[in-house]
Amino acid sequence: MSEFALIRAFLTDIGPPRADVALGVGDDCALLALPAGQLLAVSLDTLSAGIHFFPDCDPTAIGHKALAVGLSDLAAMGATPAWSTLALTLPAADDAWLRAFCAGFAALSNAHGIRLVGGDTTRGPLSVTVQVHGQVPLGAAIRRDGARPGDLVCVSGTLGDAGLALRGLLAGEPVAPALRRRLEYPTPRVELGLALRGLASAMIDLSDGLAGDLGHILTASGVGAELELAKLPLSPPVAEVVARTGDWSLPLASGDDYELCFCLPPAHAAQCQAFAATLDYPLRHIGQIHANAGLRCRLPDGGYLADSLSGYDHFAAGRR
Amino acid sequence: MSEFALIRAFLTDIGPPRADVALGVGDDCALLALPAGQLLAVSLDTLSAGIHFFPDCDPTAIGHKALAVGLSDLAAMGATPAWSTLALTLPAADDAWLRAFCAGFAALSNAHGIRLVGGDTTRGPLSVTVQVHGQVPLGAAIRRDGARPGDLVCVSGTLGDAGLALRGLLAGEPVAPALRRRLEYPTPRVELGLALRGLASAMIDLSDGLAGDLGHILTASGVGAELELAKLPLSPPVAEVVARTGDWSLPLASGDDYELCFCLPPAHAAQCQAFAATLDYPLRHIGQIHANAGLRCRLPDGGYLADSLSGYDHFAAGRR
Repeated sequence: MSEFALIRAFLTDIGPPRADVALGVGDDCALLALPAGQLLAVSLDTLSAGIHFFPDCDPTAIGHKALAVGLSDLAAMGATPAWSTLALTLPAADDAWLRAFCAGFAALSNAHGIRLVGGDTTRGPLSVTVQVHGQVPLGAAIRRDGARPGDLVCVSGTLGDAGLALRGLLAGEPVAPALRRRLEYPTPRVELGLALRGLASAMIDLSDGLAGDLGHILTASGVGAELELAKLPLSPPVAEVVARTGDWSLPLASGDDYELCFCLPPAHAAQCQAFAATLDYPLRHIGQIHANAGLRCRLPDGGYLADSLSGYDHFAAGRR
Repeated sequence: MSEFALIRAFLTDIGPPRADVALGVGDDCALLALPAGQLLAVSLDTLSAGIHFFPDCDPTAIGHKALAVGLSDLAAMGATPAWSTLALTLPAADDAWLRAFCAGFAALSNAHGIRLVGGDTTRGPLSVTVQVHGQVPLGAAIRRDGARPGDLVCVSGTLGDAGLALRGLLAGEPVAPALRRRLEYPTPRVELGLALRGLASAMIDLSDGLAGDLGHILTASGVGAELELAKLPLSPPVAEVVARTGDWSLPLASGDDYELCFCLPPAHAAQCQAFAATLDYPLRHIGQIHANAGLRCRLPDGGYLADSLSGYDHFAAGRR
């Protein structure tokens, strides 16, 4: 099967048709219409076999996650997803693999009304690069640099589940399906990101761990923060590990959570709380922004965590 | 050096600042403003070590070419380049390599006024994926599906130089620097693409070989074409190979030319010819569009080429 036939067969009709796609897959470029008064929000992410997923990972999960990480970036800006492009590098043209990959990619595309408009398919070591394109009204984007002293630090979902699942898989231990799903099928918090427009002062999605990612907000905003570790939202298996070992690195410094961390001026807390009540996952207030630089983590016993946990580093961390 | 430090050091200030970049490198998304009345044109391409370039290729050339192939796609739509995003996968954090890569990427960015606005840096087998973003006025884009019977088939530059350089390198033979430059530093024909707005009826850039790429225009437009091989623009070394071997596969079916092939209603020929006189590379009329499907190639002796040459196929072709 030729490259062109491959592309035509699998990648020409993913996600719902959209009126703002003037020209989709199949020409030198896609042509896209942006409504007046909107900025284009774009993010590009690569997932490589052996680094971001196990080479034998279910291709449906790879398809899901390759798009999910980008949607999570759009969520973190408060942007509405619109279009995607996909660069797929495959060691061989494998019908079954492509079919499963596309199933995962298409299901999440459909869930968010995002259309695949172009890309590239090449031969090489398995790797998936996706660019997502979203729309956000002028002045409405939630950046990293808007946190101010006194803002509440909040986080969605539970932290460290994906990291715990990864630990188990690396150790060859059995991993509960619900935990493994948190690693392989992360849920981008798109509706939360949109709801926080006009409320949150700064936001980031958690791809590399809370400490490092919140650190990016602190650096960009020129502020510091204190977290109360007792308030971190933990699932029972992560809470059990922390209680047993006293090691907070799972919720603070393991990657792949794809939850949102945001800062909230206290005046907006009630409105946010009302919205939180409509969600099927927690929104938790875990700390506060301070004028003094740095991140301090207060332990449940009142002491402070000594380590500076800086998050996941692709060039330092181990292979999968 | 951590991932974040790497990115900050090399990839935060590539290409000229632009007023339409509301937010560039360093947040979850870049935020970009599109002028009213313009469509966004996007194209995503991957270059992988061992497939698209030799693993020991000069990183400056890789940086140039990774952007050039995208700019060539914008040229083929008649779009004005604006922004790029870059996903760089590296086996290790290598300062010297990154510095040289960025030099090539930045030089071409500056030449076209295109700003790097975001991306991703990950560890893995060497691979570069670039998305280019351009702007094109509503209704002005030059698509593949507009060729009509009677249109002239035209091509820029000379054909097969990159293919001949690649043959030499694969055979371990000495390759003249000018020829090698055609492979490693292709020149995207951006100004030509813009000049052909309102003139060309269909256009494509030549990445996989004239026969296959023109074939995409023919298929999309529902027409056929006849080429006169005697009219193909050939550099002296390619002309020598064709004359010696009688084999036309270099100009017809070797990749990486990154010239533009376009169709021209005869009424626009004079205007195009006047523009051609201002260029430092040839624009050549090489054939004609016909109503009957298929591509026929007339040999200089009056006969027809028997083979259907379908262009470069990543999943069938050999490794570099």
